[in-house]
This record gives sequence, C-alpha cells and structure tokens, in this order.
Amino acid sequence: MFKAEIKSETFKNLMSVISTVVDEVKMTIHPDSLTMKAIDPAHVAMIDTVVEKDAFISYEADETEIGLDLDKIRSVLKLAGPNDTICMEHDPDQGLLTMVIGNIERRMALVDTGSLSDPKVPKVDLPASVKVRLDQLQKGIRAAESVSDTDHIKIEVNTEGFELSCSGDTDLASLKVPASELEMSIEGAVHSMYPLDYFSNIVKVIPSEIVEIQLDVDYPVKLLFDLADGHAHITYLLAPRIENE
Amino acid sequence: MFKAEIKSETFKNLMSVISTVVDEVKMTIHPDSLTMKAIDPAHVAMIDTVVEKDAFISYEADETEIGLDLDKIRSVLKLAGPNDTICMEHDPDQGLLTMVIGNIERRMALVDTGSLSDPKVPKVDLPASVKVRLDQLQKGIRAAESVSDTDHIKIEVNTEGFELSCSGDTDLASLKVPASELEMSIEGAVHSMYPLDYFSNIVKVIPSEIVEIQLDVDYPVKLLFDLADGHAHITYLLAPRIENE
Amino acid sequence: MFKAEIKSETFKNLMSVISTVVDEVKMTIHPDSLTMKAIDPAHVAMIDTVVEKDAFISYEADETEIGLDLDKIRSVLKLAGPNDTICMEHDPDQGLLTMVIGNIERRMALVDTGSLSDPKVPKVDLPASVKVRLDQLQKGIRAAESVSDTDHIKIEVNTEGFELSCSGDTDLASLKVPASELEMSIEGAVHSMYPLDYFSNIVKVIPSEIVEIQLDVDYPVKLLFDLADGHAHITYLLAPRIENE
Repeated sequence: MFKAEIKSETFKNLMSVISTVVDEVKMTIHPDSLTMKAIDPAHVAMIDTVVEKDAFISYEADETEIGLDLDKIRSVLKLAGPNDTICMEHDPDQGLLTMVIGNIERRMALVDTGSLSDPKVPKVDLPASVKVRLDQLQKGIRAAESVSDTDHIKIEVNTEGFELSCSGDTDLASLKVPASELEMSIEGAVHSMYPLDYFSNIVKVIPSEIVEIQLDVDYPVKLLFDLADGHAHITYLLAPRIENE
Repeated sequence: MFKAEIKSETFKNLMSVISTVVDEVKMTIHPDSLTMKAIDPAHVAMIDTVVEKDAFISYEADETEIGLDLDKIRSVLKLAGPNDTICMEHDPDQGLLTMVIGNIERRMALVDTGSLSDPKVPKVDLPASVKVRLDQLQKGIRAAESVSDTDHIKIEVNTEGFELSCSGDTDLASLKVPASELEMSIEGAVHSMYPLDYFSNIVKVIPSEIVEIQLDVDYPVKLLFDLADGHAHITYLLAPRIENE
Repeated sequence: MFKAEIKSETFKNLMSVISTVVDEVKMTIHPDSLTMKAIDPAHVAMIDTVVEKDAFISYEADETEIGLDLDKIRSVLKLAGPNDTICMEHDPDQGLLTMVIGNIERRMALVDTGSLSDPKVPKVDLPASVKVRLDQLQKGIRAAESVSDTDHIKIEVNTEGFELSCSGDTDLASLKVPASELEMSIEGAVHSMYPLDYFSNIVKVIPSEIVEIQLDVDYPVKLLFDLADGHAHITYLLAPRIENE
C-alpha cells in the first residue's frame, strides 16, 4: 500500500534531478520514508535520494517497490502549478499508479521493478567540504562552456577558496570564490577534473540555493543538497576524469 | 465596395480561429454583416463565422465576396498591437485589399474566390449543451496529450457533470467538472469520441473564456463562442470517431 | 599595452553591431581611442567604428592592434549583466586577451591580425539626411518582410517625408513618416533600393533610439548612430541595388 500527497513543486524538483541520471527509477517505499537510487548508463554519475515522510503533506505506506517512467511522470507534473497538491495512490493488483491534481485524474502503468537497477552507493569519506551558492556554480559553468576545445571542468578547494576552471589549448575560464565568502572545511588543497556536461546537467536543475561540494584528489565529487525544508536529501556522485601525467 | 475598421485584436482572433481549419477563406460581405465558412481538407472540421457590422469600428459594404490568404493576413496583423485599429479597403477592379495600420500601408492580392469552397453547414440539433471554462478544457487536453498511445478524446456529459477523457491500453487521463459548477441542459447521458489533434488545435486558439459544447452520441460536436462583445459568433463542428463495438 | 574597463552593455552593443558584418575584426588601439573597420565577405556592407577613451570607465593604451573572434567575445559577454563592468587586458607576449567580469576570469587566444582586412572606408558625401526613430524603421522592415516575392527595400526621402517600401508583383508594403515629424535636410527627392536582408540585420541590432540616414540616388546609404552617451560613433554603409531601367 502506498498513498501520499505532496506539493507539486517538491515532486517536480525530485523528478528533474533524478532525470539527469536515468529515464526510469525504482522507488523503494518504507512506512517512514522512501528512497530512489540510480546510476547512469555510462556509470559516471550516481544519485541517492531519501525522502522522509515529513516531506509529504500526507503519507501512508507499507514496504513496497514501484517503478517510475520519469518522462511520463514529468509530463503529468506539467499539469500542476507550483502550489498544487499531487495525490498519488498505488494499485498493486493492476500495477498502476494514479495521480490526482485538482480535477485531473491520471492513471498510468508502472515499470517492472525487476528491470531496474538498484545500485549500491559507495561510502566515500571525502576530506574537503565547501558550501557554494548555486548561482555562482551556474555562472562558473556558463564561463566554462564558452571554452570550446575541452570537455572537462576542474574543481579546486584550497586555503584561498573555491575555484571552478576549464582550460583548453589556449583559452581558460575560471570562477573564484574567496574563502572569506565560504563555509568550508579542508585538510589540504584538493582538486580533480570532472566531465563538464554531467556537471552542467545536474547544476542546471538543482533546486537549492546552496550546494555542499565534497572533494578529494582524483576521487568522485559529491554534491549534497536538500529539498522540502530539509526533509528530502539528495547526494549526487560524479566520477573524476583522471589527468594523464 | 467594402471599407471597414476593426480592432486588431478582434481581427487577429477571427483569423487564428479560421486558420485551424483552412489556409484560404472566402469572406462573403453583406451590408450589415460578413460571414466566413470553411471545411478542412480532410472534411473532419467545419467552421461557420458571422461577424455583425457592430463588431467593427466602422463598416461600409455592398454585397461582395473576397478571398483571403490567411497566412499573409496574419503576417500583416503581427505588425499591429492589440489596441491598434486595422483599416481595410477592397479594390474590386485590381482585385486587391489594402490594410492600413498606423503609418503602415499593406496592399495585397486577393485569392480567386472561384477556387474557394463554400461549404453548407449542416443544421444539427444536439440534445446536450454545457458551458465549460476554456482553462478547464485546455487543462483536460494537456492531460489527454500525456497519454501517448491514443489519438482520440472522449467528451461526456451526464447528470454528474462534464468529463473529458483519454484512454490508452493501460493509461488514462480524465478531467471532471461537477454539474454544480456548470450551466448545462441535457436530456440524458451522452458521450462521443473525437480526434484529439483537431480538438486540441481549436481549443488552443479560442479567445473566449467560456465555450458552449453541444453534443450527442456519435454525432459531430459543436463548439460555440463569441467575439467582439458578442457581435461575432463562431460555430465549430468536429466529426466523431465512431467506436467499434 | 592595452588595459581598459567598460560597461558590459556598451561592449555588447558594439560587438553585436560589428557581428552583422564580420566574424572576426581587427581592433586598432590608440592612446585616446580605438577603431574597428570591417567589410562583409560579399563586399555589400561596411562598418566604421570609433570608440573614444571616454566611452570607457578606465583606459590605458599604447598603439597596438588585436584581432577579436566575435563569437567567442559574445559568448563571454553573455556572462555579464547589463550593468556589470568588463575589464580587458592584452598580453602581447602570449597573444592573449584576458576579460574579467566579477569573479569570472576568461583568457582567450587572439586572432592573427595579419589575416584580417583593414578596409578603406570611402568618403562619400550624401545630399539627403534624415533622422528616423529606430522603432519606425523596425516596423517598416517587418512590414517589408511580409511581402514574400521581393528581396529589396526602397528608401525614399522627399519634401513629404521619409518612406520605406517594398513592392512585389502584386503586393506592396510601405511605411511613411511625414516631414513634420522628422529632422531632415535634403536638396531634392532621392530614393534607392537596398538588399532587405542586410538592412534588416543591422536595424535589428542598432542600440540607439534615433538613426541618421544619409542617402543619394543609386549610392550607398549611410546609417549613423552613437553609443556610450555619444562617445562611440558608428557608420554603416550599404551598397545599393541598381534598378534596371
């Protein structure tokens, strides 16, 4: 059994973020929370989402799993304004999910959960952490995208602050945020390279004003942010591009 | 002779509505009103427009007919703001129409009326009538369009109210408006199926807040709405898709 | 040496205007001003730009030349809001230009100035001059573009005023501004035809409210306008289409 109501904006934001990684996702439902984990087909990006019961307006659930077609869900969510409420109810016998938005009812077939991966998210403990404003990240990415002859971005944290940079053969773009404007915790200077397109895709849809970035040398970067007044937690992991020495 | 002034918004709305059916239309001009009738090339949709003299700012006309190229007219109307006045004058000797918008003059060749059809609009008397808010219809259509494996929409009116619905193999979208929120008159429950694309195209451009829908079982549906403070009347007829039993 | 600060809006406008003529331009830098001249590949349009020191917030320069890739510059300028300041510094040893916008730094390779033309702008003295509002020109061009079977536009100045017109086989579009609404100086009536696409491209990006048009019979037309509170001067020359007699 699964029956819940949620603010349309919260659900839209969740679905947008997970859509950067996969087209279909398994929602693992518990009585007090639900989780969605996914890894992209190229095994470069991974997402781990925990949505607490309190992120919902109402929530009644037994242990169950349902498979969502994210394109279909998102087309339905376009029918809702940001302040509308989405009511969802799972019919396990028919394998259907019914979504109600105002006087619209939308019943849809679910994806077979047997076909959906359930990736193990690695426990990585990264030594550097910095909280950066999303608008800064977005500006840095647009600057990086103006450098045409490269497809990776360098993230760097040291005692001077945070830097996003992108170097081609002759051109360079960089965004620097001084340590004085940041909340950060580091053991030493760290930097790594990541694929620019993946980094750009996730940063474009992050719905939070502040993103925590956790980093190490040639390790996956972790982006952490919350939704629903802190009741939904998202961890996005992106594999590094190892620089050839 | 035909010489008239009209609010650009009124003329834009008329041309947009007729453009959903045909690319060229015959305007039959009388001293006190003008009419435009058209049937689409597939003979699925038909439109019947009556524009009274009072829909115009000024209007002087003898009996005449002119053929309009709707794409050309609409490209000229883009030069006008919603509150601009369009002055039109027919030169029957040259076969030209001159439109004046502020300090812009646009003279254009007319379409030969001999090549334009003049469909007879059937007199159908439909037993069910319901007035629905346009924004409800538009929401219902967007919901229907999210169901990918079907291309028709069901319109239903019964004592409970009005319903637009769309069913695929597994998926279903429906919009219900309860009778208590509607002005309706029915003899019994009626429903029919119509092609979704046609229904969507006309509903997208209807410039009126309320649309009257007249309906019967497996009969054409009639959409009726007014423009120009009730001085222009539009009837749109759409053929049903007969359900196989 | 070249180091300067300029309002992003001023620099954006300059680059947009020059981009209608060429993709790369030579900036010839003097201690008190800089100039950019360009001719389009088909030798139909020419632009001559003089930007005085006072158009900049700060300006330090020796005599030098740098070659700009306009697409690259414009992609960087998209990172700036209209009130941001752009800081530019030329590194002649590396052949690089560094642009700084807030906490973004963008270093880019320059184009070899040897490959860039330095056209001589002809001194033409044209007998008719008229100052026209940009919004009028833009409206006239949109009207002209609605006439599909022609690709040139006629500019005419006479004692009655200014007229932009476009005639196809049967259709005609014209914009007239009466002399009473214009500041003009003419010796006699003049008119010439120009390629509509070129005229449209430059008029779309002119950032000034008033454009001075200088004209003669079958001569290039000159469009003159200023930027940066009158501290940057742009002359655009467009070759006529000679009408066959």
